[in-house]
Amino acid sequence: MVRQAADRIRPLAQWTPVLSSQTFDAAAGVRAQFKCENFQKGGAFKIRGASSLVFSLSREEIARGVIAYSSGNHAQATAIAAKHAGAACTIVMPADAPRSKLEATRAQGASVTTYDRRVESREAVTAGIMERTGAVLIPPFDHPLIIAGQGTAALEFLHDYPVMDALIAPVGGGGLLSGCAIAARSVHPKIRIFGAEPAEANDTYLSFRKGERVEIAQQNTIADGLRSPAPGKITFPILQKVAEDILLVTEEEIRSTLKFLLTRLKILVEPSGAVAAAAVLHHRLPADVKWVGVILSGGNIDFDQLATL
Amino acid sequence: MVRQAADRIRPLAQWTPVLSSQTFDAAAGVRAQFKCENFQKGGAFKIRGASSLVFSLSREEIARGVIAYSSGNHAQATAIAAKHAGAACTIVMPADAPRSKLEATRAQGASVTTYDRRVESREAVTAGIMERTGAVLIPPFDHPLIIAGQGTAALEFLHDYPVMDALIAPVGGGGLLSGCAIAARSVHPKIRIFGAEPAEANDTYLSFRKGERVEIAQQNTIADGLRSPAPGKITFPILQKVAEDILLVTEEEIRSTLKFLLTRLKILVEPSGAVAAAAVLHHRLPADVKWVGVILSGGNIDFDQLATL
Repeated sequence: MVRQAADRIRPLAQWTPVLSSQTFDAAAGVRAQFKCENFQKGGAFKIRGASSLVFSLSREEIARGVIAYSSGNHAQATAIAAKHAGAACTIVMPADAPRSKLEATRAQGASVTTYDRRVESREAVTAGIMERTGAVLIPPFDHPLIIAGQGTAALEFLHDYPVMDALIAPVGGGGLLSGCAIAARSVHPKIRIFGAEPAEANDTYLSFRKGERVEIAQQNTIADGLRSPAPGKITFPILQKVAEDILLVTEEEIRSTLKFLLTRLKILVEPSGAVAAAAVLHHRLPADVKWVGVILSGGNIDFDQLATL
Repeated sequence: MVRQAADRIRPLAQWTPVLSSQTFDAAAGVRAQFKCENFQKGGAFKIRGASSLVFSLSREEIARGVIAYSSGNHAQATAIAAKHAGAACTIVMPADAPRSKLEATRAQGASVTTYDRRVESREAVTAGIMERTGAVLIPPFDHPLIIAGQGTAALEFLHDYPVMDALIAPVGGGGLLSGCAIAARSVHPKIRIFGAEPAEANDTYLSFRKGERVEIAQQNTIADGLRSPAPGKITFPILQKVAEDILLVTEEEIRSTLKFLLTRLKILVEPSGAVAAAAVLHHRLPADVKWVGVILSGGNIDFDQLATL
């Protein structure tokens, strides 16, 4: 399914470059390669999953349009994929999402409906619109074709750098990590798989320890893309099977890693996108990992927020 | 000489990646490819020229050590090249150079001597040290082996993207542009060559118009790497022969281009490094240029300065 998704998304998604840094390696004590999904179309890996699903829809479904709820990058990705497929697109987005993400989503021609995260449920708002319009839901992570799409990042990564002995990606709902784990294991059966999560949004870490999905209260991590309250019903069993561990990082570690990537590697990564790199830079990987592939999952951050950081 | 330099510098200099952006192209009205020298070792193209010259020195010269004066990137590059060659290195640097550049130069093991740009001559300070130590001067641009080294950026660029019909690079002393012009013309004899300069540091523009080297008073452009008072004695005749025009950009255009590259392409470029991109983004190229290669010459900028911008 990941290989089929790779063919399907190719007209839209970029084969993103891989960078490395001797300075990072010296600080982290490991050889790291960075898959730069911050250079991806739409500024994040999300276009892979969104286009994987949208490009699988029937003509009748395309005619009804698509809808998604998202804190940002999945919204923009769905809007771009819908535009490419000729489908009308509605995005349900929290009113306090980063301005760059709201603007970028509207700029892609989507109709944006905002809601108040503190008092409204995005699911309820979305269901209401679906009932009125018949739009097809493009879920952010918990769908086989979304997971397969996200996994294409690992297929490319291992094609370009086949020698890595571990792969690490940020975990929100788990779509990126589960898809990449499936793809990586199919190419390299012994590769070790790690997830990275903010300690302030540790739902997958807690679920992993407990052996079942745990829901947590919403947390105020700066990694706004990783604020999912629980891992997915489809993604979590995959992660249980393939992930060796979920590694936690502090808010300060995310911030300092974002700064390190900006000032040393000269690349802009959003807080969510820097979480896996933060875990590596702050020595959370087992000491016997020598070559690690790190997914930098996105680069969408408000210029004002960056200046504040 | 450029091809020989390319062989010589390979153990140290990176073959840097090339990026493009549909958003940039739409705004600029041209297809642009960006040669990312901000990802270069030392954060700028300068390692090419410095290692080209340092790696040509005799054992006796290496034993005497090397010296350079520079507002920053050439200093760091010379320090890195000297360290690689096992030569002691002294850098004469203005006391008000960006802190990141001072620190990065010291971190490479160089001995840094600072001077006050308003009251002292860097040449006199350097000459005094050379007399005491016998160190070999590594000039920032006006030397055939430095020019040949900088030209390797264009050799790589045209290898990766042979179709461009114009090449544009920032101009300080002219080492990068003259070297790249020679290399590009040898591969692609009809390629059009443009330089880009801050209007606030327009020495090469004025020299080009007058047909002879003009010296200007030091200007306070944010493009600190392009504050040379005049083009070089060796570089200028090359530029007269091969450059079609020198294009000027304002300080605000440099700033907004830096922001565009950061928020849209997700890459950090220093003000000097963004000057050629600024000229393209602000439509300074002739309208019949369709495919342009743009050199982003460096990415070293203080985090505090970036926040202020």
